[in-house]
Amino acid sequence: MQNFTYCNPTKLIFGRDAHKAIGSEIASFAGGGKVLIVYGGGSAVRTGTLAAVAQSCRDAGLTVLEKGGVEPNPKVELVREVIEIARREAVDVLLAVGGGSVIDTAKAAAMGYFYDGDVWDFFCGRAQPKKALPVCCVLTIPAAGSEQSIRTVITNGNVKNGAGNACVRPKVSAVNPELFFTLPENQIAAGVIDMMSHIMERYFTNTPDVDYTSAQAESALRVIMRNGLKLIDNHKDYAAWCEIGLAGSFAHNGYFGLGHEEDWACHGIEHALSGWDTRITHGAGLAVVTPSWMRYVHHTNPARFMRFAVEVMQVTPIEGDEEATIELAIAKFCAFLQRMHLPVRLGELVDRVVPVEEIAAAATARGPLGNFQKLTARDVQAILESAR
Amino acid sequence: MQNFTYCNPTKLIFGRDAHKAIGSEIASFAGGGKVLIVYGGGSAVRTGTLAAVAQSCRDAGLTVLEKGGVEPNPKVELVREVIEIARREAVDVLLAVGGGSVIDTAKAAAMGYFYDGDVWDFFCGRAQPKKALPVCCVLTIPAAGSEQSIRTVITNGNVKNGAGNACVRPKVSAVNPELFFTLPENQIAAGVIDMMSHIMERYFTNTPDVDYTSAQAESALRVIMRNGLKLIDNHKDYAAWCEIGLAGSFAHNGYFGLGHEEDWACHGIEHALSGWDTRITHGAGLAVVTPSWMRYVHHTNPARFMRFAVEVMQVTPIEGDEEATIELAIAKFCAFLQRMHLPVRLGELVDRVVPVEEIAAAATARGPLGNFQKLTARDVQAILESAR
Repeated sequence: MQNFTYCNPTKLIFGRDAHKAIGSEIASFAGGGKVLIVYGGGSAVRTGTLAAVAQSCRDAGLTVLEKGGVEPNPKVELVREVIEIARREAVDVLLAVGGGSVIDTAKAAAMGYFYDGDVWDFFCGRAQPKKALPVCCVLTIPAAGSEQSIRTVITNGNVKNGAGNACVRPKVSAVNPELFFTLPENQIAAGVIDMMSHIMERYFTNTPDVDYTSAQAESALRVIMRNGLKLIDNHKDYAAWCEIGLAGSFAHNGYFGLGHEEDWACHGIEHALSGWDTRITHGAGLAVVTPSWMRYVHHTNPARFMRFAVEVMQVTPIEGDEEATIELAIAKFCAFLQRMHLPVRLGELVDRVVPVEEIAAAATARGPLGNFQKLTARDVQAILESAR
Repeated sequence: MQNFTYCNPTKLIFGRDAHKAIGSEIASFAGGGKVLIVYGGGSAVRTGTLAAVAQSCRDAGLTVLEKGGVEPNPKVELVREVIEIARREAVDVLLAVGGGSVIDTAKAAAMGYFYDGDVWDFFCGRAQPKKALPVCCVLTIPAAGSEQSIRTVITNGNVKNGAGNACVRPKVSAVNPELFFTLPENQIAAGVIDMMSHIMERYFTNTPDVDYTSAQAESALRVIMRNGLKLIDNHKDYAAWCEIGLAGSFAHNGYFGLGHEEDWACHGIEHALSGWDTRITHGAGLAVVTPSWMRYVHHTNPARFMRFAVEVMQVTPIEGDEEATIELAIAKFCAFLQRMHLPVRLGELVDRVVPVEEIAAAATARGPLGNFQKLTARDVQAILESAR
C-alpha cells in the first residue's frame, strides 16, 4: 500500500424528499445569500424537481437565479456563461440540479469564478484553481459520481478534458432515489457502467497489498450489477435505486482508490470517443471500450484479473488455465453489459465508421494513457480495432 | 433503506511517517497556536513517538504542552484535568497520541472545554455539546476507530458511558502502521475484534434493502479476519497492518451504518463488564460477549444470520437446515477468535466470579439494549450466563 491523504467533507443527504432539504442546508452556511441553480434540459422542469428545489431555497431565505441548457458532454461555452452570470449577480453558491454534466458545469464555473484567465486553462494544465465558489448538488441521474468527487469533465470543440481539485468537491449533495424513476433505460444502463468504471479504474492497479480497498471494490461491483439488473426489469424499484444511488455516490469519491495507483485508461479512451461524436453517451462508450481494454491488458497482471474473475464475476477458476478463466470472466462481464442492453461493439455505439487512428491520437495527445498498462496511440488503436 | 445524512470531514493521513506530518497539518488551521498533546503511559514515550510528534508540532511553529497518564477505560477525573489545563493555558488544539482511550479522553475534554457544567453531563444525557476544541490524532493502536468517529467512551467509577457529537469528530488523524509493530499480541487481537464489532453492530440490522452497506461490511470483515491472523504470526507485517489500520479507521466512522438501524447491544454489555472490572480489555470482553449474543438473538432474523454465515464466515449452507448453518457460522467465528488467542468464555476473561445479574442491571440501567433484538436485564443475564 502507498502512503495517502484523504478527506471527503461532502455532506450527503440521502433518501425520499432529500432534494427538499437542500435550501436549509445551503442557508446554514450562506444564509440570506444568492444561489444560482444550474440545470440541463426539460426533464428537471417537467418533473417538477427544479421548482421544488428553487422553492426549498426560497423557503430558506435564499435568493434564487436559474440558468438552464447544460447538454450531455457539457461545453466550455456554457461554463463561461455561468461564470459571467455568477460574477454579474454576485452569486454565493452554485447549485447543480441534474446529473454529471450539470454538476461538472457548476464545478468548472465555480473554479473559473475566481480566476482572471479563461476557465479552459484548468482543463489543459495551464492553471490550477486556488479557490472556488461553493458547489451543492441535487442529483437526478446516478452515474458520474460527481456529487462527491473532486473531478469535472468539460468539452471544448472535439476535446474533452478533465480537471480536479479539492476546492470543487461539493459541499452538500442531495440524493433522492425517487428522482431516478423517470430515467429512460439507456440512461439507467449508462449510469450503471459509469459507476462500475469509476470503481474498476481504481481496482485495476499493480500496487501490491491493497486487500481492503480491493475487497470493498469487489463487493460494490457485485451490488451494482445485481441491482442494475433489477432496474432494467423495474425502473421504479426504490430499493434497487437506493443501492445504485449510494454505490454511485461513493464510487468516485476516492475511497476505492486509497493507497494505490489508479488506471483511468478506459475513461481516457472514451473521452476521446465522445469528444469526437458528442452524441455518444459516456456510459455507452465505456461499455464498448472496457471489455476490449480488458482483453488487451490482462497479461500485464494476471493475478489481478484472476481476483476480478473470482471475486467480481464469480467465475469458478478453470484449473491450471488462468487465461481461460480470465477470458470467461470478461465474457461474463460482456454478457452482463448486454443484459443491461448496452452496446459492446463500436458498430452498436454509433452509426458511422469510427476513425480509430484519429481517436487513438486524440486519447494520447497528452501522453500515454493509464497506469495498469501504459498505452500508446498504437495500443489504443488496437483496443478500438478489436472493439469494431 | 432509511433516509440518512452523512458527513465525515476527518482528514486521514496514512502510511509511513504519517505522524511526522501532523504538525504542519495542525499549523494549516491553527498556525502559531498552542497544542496540548494528550497521551497514555510509557509506550508513546519509550518508542519515541511522542517526541517525534512534539517535534513535528514545534517545527511547524506550534507551542507544545503535554499531559500523560491516560489509562485503558479512561477516567472522567483525567478528562477534568485536561479541561483545566486547556483552559488555564488557552490551548487551541488537543492532539491525542495513543489509542482509543487517549483519543476519547481528548474528545471528552474538547467537549467540556466550552461547557460550564461538569463534563460527565454529556455522558449521562444531561447535556449536549454545542462546540468543541479541534481534536487531532496520532494513532498508536488500531482498534477503537475513534480517530474518525464522533464517539467517546469514558468511565466514571463503575459506570462506562458513551457520548457522541459531530463536533468532536477529529479534524486530522495520522495513521502510520509502523507504529503498531510494538503492540503485544493481546492488544493486536483485542483491536481486531473491536473493529469487527464496530462493523457487526451496524451489520446486524432488521432494516430491509441495505445490500450496499451489507456487502461492504462483509468484505471488510473478511479482510480484517485474514489480516488479523497474519499479524498473530508476524507482529511486524507492514502490509497486514495497513489493511487493519485502514479497516479499523473506517469501521467506526458511520459508513457501514448508512441508511439503517444499528444494534450496539454487545458494546453495551461489554461496557458494563469492563466498567465493573476495569482490568478487562474492551476487545477481550467483546470476544466473550459477541458469540453468546449471536446464539441468543439469531432467531430474531435468521435471514440476516444466514447472510452472515455465507458471506462473512463463508460457510456452505447445510441444505434445509438454517439453524445448523447459523450455528456452524457462530462456531467458525469462535474458532477464529480462539486462533487470535482471545477469550470466548467469562472464565477466560477474568479471574473472579462475574456477578452477571449485577452486570445485566448495569448494562440496562438506561433502558433495554440494542435494536436487532431489544434486550432486557433478563436477556443480558441469560447471554452472560451462557458465556460462563
